Amino acid sequence: MIVTLTTDFGLADGYVAAMKGVILGINPAATLVDISHSVPHQDVRNAAFVLHTVHAFFPAGAIHLAVVDPGVGASRRALALKTPQAIFMAPDNGLLSYILADNAVEFLSSAPKLGLQDTPLPASVRAFHVNNPKYWRRPVSHTFHGRDVFAPVAAHLSLGVPLEEVGEAVHSLLAFRVPRPEPQADGALLAHVQHIDSFGNLISDVRGSDLPAETKIEIEIEIQGQKIRGLSSSYTEAQGLLAIMGSSGYLEIALKNGNAARALAASIGDTFVLRFR
Amino acid sequence: MIVTLTTDFGLADGYVAAMKGVILGINPAATLVDISHSVPHQDVRNAAFVLHTVHAFFPAGAIHLAVVDPGVGASRRALALKTPQAIFMAPDNGLLSYILADNAVEFLSSAPKLGLQDTPLPASVRAFHVNNPKYWRRPVSHTFHGRDVFAPVAAHLSLGVPLEEVGEAVHSLLAFRVPRPEPQADGALLAHVQHIDSFGNLISDVRGSDLPAETKIEIEIEIQGQKIRGLSSSYTEAQGLLAIMGSSGYLEIALKNGNAARALAASIGDTFVLRFR
Amino acid sequence: MIVTLTTDFGLADGYVAAMKGVILGINPAATLVDISHSVPHQDVRNAAFVLHTVHAFFPAGAIHLAVVDPGVGASRRALALKTPQAIFMAPDNGLLSYILADNAVEFLSSAPKLGLQDTPLPASVRAFHVNNPKYWRRPVSHTFHGRDVFAPVAAHLSLGVPLEEVGEAVHSLLAFRVPRPEPQADGALLAHVQHIDSFGNLISDVRGSDLPAETKIEIEIEIQGQKIRGLSSSYTEAQGLLAIMGSSGYLEIALKNGNAARALAASIGDTFVLRFR
Repeated sequence: MIVTLTTDFGLADGYVAAMKGVILGINPAATLVDISHSVPHQDVRNAAFVLHTVHAFFPAGAIHLAVVDPGVGASRRALALKTPQAIFMAPDNGLLSYILADNAVEFLSSAPKLGLQDTPLPASVRAFHVNNPKYWRRPVSHTFHGRDVFAPVAAHLSLGVPLEEVGEAVHSLLAFRVPRPEPQADGALLAHVQHIDSFGNLISDVRGSDLPAETKIEIEIEIQGQKIRGLSSSYTEAQGLLAIMGSSGYLEIALKNGNAARALAASIGDTFVLRFR
Repeated sequence: MIVTLTTDFGLADGYVAAMKGVILGINPAATLVDISHSVPHQDVRNAAFVLHTVHAFFPAGAIHLAVVDPGVGASRRALALKTPQAIFMAPDNGLLSYILADNAVEFLSSAPKLGLQDTPLPASVRAFHVNNPKYWRRPVSHTFHGRDVFAPVAAHLSLGVPLEEVGEAVHSLLAFRVPRPEPQADGALLAHVQHIDSFGNLISDVRGSDLPAETKIEIEIEIQGQKIRGLSSSYTEAQGLLAIMGSSGYLEIALKNGNAARALAASIGDTFVLRFR
Repeated sequence: MIVTLTTDFGLADGYVAAMKGVILGINPAATLVDISHSVPHQDVRNAAFVLHTVHAFFPAGAIHLAVVDPGVGASRRALALKTPQAIFMAPDNGLLSYILADNAVEFLSSAPKLGLQDTPLPASVRAFHVNNPKYWRRPVSHTFHGRDVFAPVAAHLSLGVPLEEVGEAVHSLLAFRVPRPEPQADGALLAHVQHIDSFGNLISDVRGSDLPAETKIEIEIEIQGQKIRGLSSSYTEAQGLLAIMGSSGYLEIALKNGNAARALAASIGDTFVLRFR
C-alpha cells in the first residue's frame, strides 16, 4: 500500500524520517513516496495545490498524508477523508480545499473569496475526525502530530483498519475558495496565478474547459503590459514569453529558456487577462 | 530490514544514490530511508544530534548508517555499534556520542567539555572496528568509504551477517561531551542551544526531567534580555516568543508565526537561563 | 526491479512524485531510487555526468530514467538504450553521451568539441525510439513526457516488456564529446574541470589510466598560478589545496577543510596543467 507524504518540514532535521520510522514500525511493507517537503513553512495553500496536482497520478486507494500544521497542539482537528480516488489525511486548516473541489465541480467557487469557511462535504466524500487514541503513538507530543497522530493512523489505515475506526464522522470541514478565472463584461477572462513552480512557470487557474471550444478562436493574453498570442505546444516553440496548457491541466505562462516569474517579478495571486477573437 | 542514511553529501551529486545502489546490489529487499543529507558539510555534531533525535522512532533492529567523514582515507576507524535498540555505523569521530549517552544516562556529562576523548563503552553497547575487508566493495576508494565500506557492510548486516564478522571488537570510541544544562548557585539552570531546526526553533539541552516536578512552580526563561513566562502547549498559544517541550523531548524556544533563530540572531552553543518559582 | 530517477525538476512541486505514482501504478513492486533532482535547470551535461558516475554502482539490469528535457513537446526523440550493464531512458539531447563513451573507450573523443552530433552506436549498445504509444499514459501532456511517456515505459520495461516493443530501433543518437585531457607538446597534460560537487571539489577529466604508470614519477599540478605537488591519499593529508584520485575515478582538486571551487573561483570547463617528472 502506498503512503505519500507532503509537509513543510524540509529534509534537514529528520522530522520526515521520524514519520517514516513510525509508519514502517506499524506496516513494514508500506511503500512510502515523498510528494514534497519543501512547502514554504506554514503555507497551507501551497501544500493544498501540490497535493491536488500530484495525487491523481497515484493508483486508486493510495493514502496521502499532508502535514502543514501551524495549529498543531491547539484545537484544530486531524482529519481523514475518503474520496472515490484515495484517502487523504491532513489537519482541518484548508489543506484539503482542492481535494473537495476536485470531487464536486464548482463546489467551492461560491465560497467567500478570502479565509476559511466551514464547508459541507460533497456526496462522494466521507470524512472523519481522527480522535480515537487507540491508533496513536504514545506519548503524543504537543508539537508533532505528524509523527504521533497522522503517521500511525495512516499506517493502520494502510493495513486495512476501516476509516470508521479511527474517529468520528464529520460532515463539514474548513476550506478556502479555490481560485477560478473571472469572466469579464467584455467576454475576456481574468485569470489568477495560483502557483509558481521551480522552473519559474506561472500556473494559472484556467483549465482547458475554460477556453472556447472553437479551434478557430485565437487567444490573446496580456500580462503586465506584455502580449502573448496563441498557445504554444512546447516550451521551445515560441520566442520569449509563451502560454501553454501545462501538465496539471492549467494554463501556464513560461519564458523560453528562462524564468517567467523572475522576468515578470510575478507573485501568487497576480492576475492577467485572456481575450478571445 | 530497514537501513537509514544520514550524511552531509547533499542530494545533487548522486553520492547518496551510489550508496543505495551498493546496498540494493547486496540486499535487494532492504528498505532504505533517508534521515538527512543536508547535514552542514563536516558538521559531525549536527549529524550526531539529528541521528539521536530520529533513530528512536524506527523499529528495533534497524541499521542506522551515518557518514559525515572529514577524515576518510586517513587513520580514523569505521565503527559498527550495537545497542539494545539498533545497529549504528559511523566513522569514529564523535558521530555516535549522543547514542552512547542515550544508553548510559549521564554517561558523557563528566567528559571534558570540548573536543573528542577516548570513551569506554557502556555495558549495554558492543562496538566493532569494521576492518574485515571480506564485506567491503572493491576497490575501496580513498575518498568514499560511505559507498565502499559502510554501505556494503550495512547491507550484509541487514542480511543477517553477525556483527562479530565485520571486524574486531573495540572497547572505547571517540566521543564528545553531550550538552547538559548547568545548575546555578541561585537554583537557576543555564541551558544551551544544541540545535536550530529549519523552522528556526531553538532546541535546548533541557529535558522534561530537568524541570521541577511540582506543577505549581512557574518557569521563567530569560534569553537575550527577553523574558518568557511559563511553557506553552502549542506554537500558537502564546504571543511572540514562547517556550515549549518539543517533539524530541527537549525544551524549545519558538516564535509564534515566525523564526526565533532569526529574530534572536541565535547560534548553536548560545545559553539562556531558566528560573523557577 | 530498480528504477532510478535523475531530473532537473527539484523536489518542491511534486513533479518527481507524479512520475513515481505513474510507475507504481504499473509496477507496484518497483524499487525507486532518486539519483538527483537538483540538476541545474536544463543542464543536460550535469545530468549526463551524474548519471555516468553513479549508475555503475547499481546492480546490473537496473533501469535508469533521466529527464532533463528542454525540448519536451518538440521533435526530439525519447530514447531507451540497452548496454551490457543497464537500461537507460532519456530524451535524445546528449544526456546519454557519457553512457556511450563508457561503452566504447575513446568512442566520443573524436567528436567535435562543441555541440551535439549524430553519433553511431557502439556495437555493445542497442537503442530504441520510444514511439509506441501502447505503453504511454493518456493523455500525453505537451510539457511532461517524464510523467506520460518515460515513466510508464520504464515501468513496463521493469515488468519485463521487451525493449523492441516500446519503439523502433535506432542506430545513432545525438551526443556531445566527453571531455578528455589534452596531451601537450612538452609532455604535460591539459586537464578540464568537468564537474564541481557540492563540497566544492573540482572533478577533472583525468583518469588513473591517464597518469604515468611508473610510481617514481612525481606529478605537479598548476591551477590558477598555484602549485600542487603529488597526489594525496586523503582529504586531510595535505595542507591547503590538494589533488586526489576521487571516488568516481577522476582526479579531483580539493581544499583541506574548505571549498576549492570557491577558493579558486573555479567554473566547469576551466583547465589546469599536470606535469610529470
